[in-house]
Amino acid sequence: MDFKQFQQKYNIQFNNDQLLKQAFMHTSYVNEHRDAGLEDNERLEFLGDAVLELAVSQHLFRHYPDMSEGELTKFRANIVCEPSLEQFSRTLNLGEYLLLGKGEEASGGRERPAILADAFEGLMGAIYLDQGFKKALAFLQEYVFPSIEPGAFSHVMDYKSKLQELVQKDHQSVSYKIIDEIGPDHNRQFVASVSLNGTKIGTGIGKSKKEAEQEAAKEGLKEVSKP
Amino acid sequence: MDFKQFQQKYNIQFNNDQLLKQAFMHTSYVNEHRDAGLEDNERLEFLGDAVLELAVSQHLFRHYPDMSEGELTKFRANIVCEPSLEQFSRTLNLGEYLLLGKGEEASGGRERPAILADAFEGLMGAIYLDQGFKKALAFLQEYVFPSIEPGAFSHVMDYKSKLQELVQKDHQSVSYKIIDEIGPDHNRQFVASVSLNGTKIGTGIGKSKKEAEQEAAKEGLKEVSKP
Repeated sequence: MDFKQFQQKYNIQFNNDQLLKQAFMHTSYVNEHRDAGLEDNERLEFLGDAVLELAVSQHLFRHYPDMSEGELTKFRANIVCEPSLEQFSRTLNLGEYLLLGKGEEASGGRERPAILADAFEGLMGAIYLDQGFKKALAFLQEYVFPSIEPGAFSHVMDYKSKLQELVQKDHQSVSYKIIDEIGPDHNRQFVASVSLNGTKIGTGIGKSKKEAEQEAAKEGLKEVSKP
Repeated sequence: MDFKQFQQKYNIQFNNDQLLKQAFMHTSYVNEHRDAGLEDNERLEFLGDAVLELAVSQHLFRHYPDMSEGELTKFRANIVCEPSLEQFSRTLNLGEYLLLGKGEEASGGRERPAILADAFEGLMGAIYLDQGFKKALAFLQEYVFPSIEPGAFSHVMDYKSKLQELVQKDHQSVSYKIIDEIGPDHNRQFVASVSLNGTKIGTGIGKSKKEAEQEAAKEGLKEVSKP
């Protein structure tokens, strides 16, 4: 396996090449080369999972200033999950670098979602250990996050952003207002309204102002999209 | 609230003092000061949770080289959970810096576990945003992780380390051996034995060599501790 080529392709220079190799080392390969003193990628996955979690969190935090904590948490869970990790792994062609045992190879391990997802996490752990968090974040920002942007995760929605996008094409303006508050201080709920060029097009209720505004935007979107 | 004093006490110099203040800002306080344009600490918590997850992961990864991925994951879950976060928050006296609404204050919010835990996560998010991951990690290593070490989480156990500690007092020596392997390559199980001064004191089975050795050490510990 040509790990030099991998480093050139992704513009990373590992201080410890063995760490990079370990990221791709499936336990079936280690079991077949027992006397070589190898270690599989499982502990690196443990670390890489947390690297990804923080990098994704900061990415969402910065790009979605209107999302509430609850919405951010749902969004993050949709990105840091096996189907997404598998997709990232395929985007980076990690399958071709995998080190598998013969049995695993013969039974199609190179295409197995869990093995691909684990290699992606292992790689993130290896980059973090060898290069630090900033480099790991930069790698994700360059090669992975762009594939998230274009609506790949549109089932998690930022309604305010979507409404804004929709109306600004026609140079119209959207505004939000908190019009009521319900319940005691420790369990306060907010009611928001959204207006298009001064005309109310939706209202929403939520535990935070942001959430109420998102709910209002959701209703506003339906109104605006009516034929 | 004297946030200057907080920064002196913990040797951090915030570029943006408002971020530090926000870490302590409970939603009940924001609700009472509606026109001030304040934001509560909930989005910072979202970020801080991931900062803590990575910092704890790297700490465990480095300090427990013999733990398997599964054991590390269990250990991490025991540290990144509300009771632990509350404890960290109390260690740092975060309660005294909380900004609460009057109702929340009157009903004992300053002592409420969830509010204390949230402030700790908020603080980690604020330090990360203002100072970067390295500083956040250094803060945890200096003020928080030392309180984890002395067996505070001993319900999650590294049996090999414990056995080693126990026997080295008497200058005895422990050794491990993989004595058997069971099952096919893709579902291999290992059998390990542990010996004290050459005499077998325990055996164990596990999905990795590390896990098998831990299980053997667990049995060995019981043997050594017999009256």
